[in-house]
Amino acid sequence: MARWQPNASERLVVAALDLFAERGYENTTVIDIAERAGLTKSTFFRHFPDKREVLFGGDTMTGVLVNGIAAAPAAATPLEAVAYALDTIGREAFTPARREFTARRRAVIAANPELQEREALKGLGLTASMIDALKRRGVPDLTSRVAAELGALTLKIAYERWSDTTNADEFTEVARRTLSEVQAASALSLR
Amino acid sequence: MARWQPNASERLVVAALDLFAERGYENTTVIDIAERAGLTKSTFFRHFPDKREVLFGGDTMTGVLVNGIAAAPAAATPLEAVAYALDTIGREAFTPARREFTARRRAVIAANPELQEREALKGLGLTASMIDALKRRGVPDLTSRVAAELGALTLKIAYERWSDTTNADEFTEVARRTLSEVQAASALSLR
Repeated sequence: MARWQPNASERLVVAALDLFAERGYENTTVIDIAERAGLTKSTFFRHFPDKREVLFGGDTMTGVLVNGIAAAPAAATPLEAVAYALDTIGREAFTPARREFTARRRAVIAANPELQEREALKGLGLTASMIDALKRRGVPDLTSRVAAELGALTLKIAYERWSDTTNADEFTEVARRTLSEVQAASALSLR
Repeated sequence: MARWQPNASERLVVAALDLFAERGYENTTVIDIAERAGLTKSTFFRHFPDKREVLFGGDTMTGVLVNGIAAAPAAATPLEAVAYALDTIGREAFTPARREFTARRRAVIAANPELQEREALKGLGLTASMIDALKRRGVPDLTSRVAAELGALTLKIAYERWSDTTNADEFTEVARRTLSEVQAASALSLR
């Protein structure tokens, strides 16, 4: 039986994470990454605009979230629509096979302030996309902003918990539990 | 009667905003700013590490917020402590005299993606400081995170509303009203 062959993009990401772990993000070049993946520099640049983007892979997460919110049942409340989107992320993005990759990615980012800034800004972009997706469901502006902030916080905490490799639960489970806790905390802080 | 003489830091900020409006942020140098303010380049660098920081002035906002949360009555709920800090901001930072400055600052930032990123990251830093200030009051971790996110969202929206110069209300009033709306929206999105 043929072993599963990852595609070029996946191979580049794996090679980059290996090299970042071995010699550090700053000491790794795009050429190093392409060579380790057995590919050329120009193939690298067909997939990613620069070295940094290897870790932030093309906004797939935004698409999954936005589609998840759009696909939620019409009767869903704003936070139920967010919960629906988090389920979609568990099925399409944060699958069990991705967990180890995610933990390694987090370690690289935690070691580099420039990457932390990038990650933070990507998070803000995700929140903005969720606000738009909720507004397209007819949710009023301010409610969309609040639900998106609570959703983004839930996603961030659930991601931290799930990518902790000592945790064996699937992402969807972790995210649902986290959302309940965020809802309870929100009710508490309002009181 | 002597006209009020702004201090060096204030003069540099005013000169910078004038120049940014006249010729654009990119086309203004630190030397231009110092000259316009009638000061030297080395005086500039005693007050700000670089041109960009003239707009983000030394984290005074963080100090005001953190002290405001710490000074809230012991019995205050997490969001009441945040409300208390917003009042402090209205008294100590976003005073009526600062409104025009704030509107001009916003316009400069809105015209420049690099400054927008900086503003966004400063906002995340503020949220992190609020989380720490709430935890020091004994608020549990997750509740602190939720209350700080709701507080940061309130601050952001209130700042947008208040710095809109067609609006004549004081910051404290705008912030209190915004916080009520955020609380109502939060309750709605939870349902």
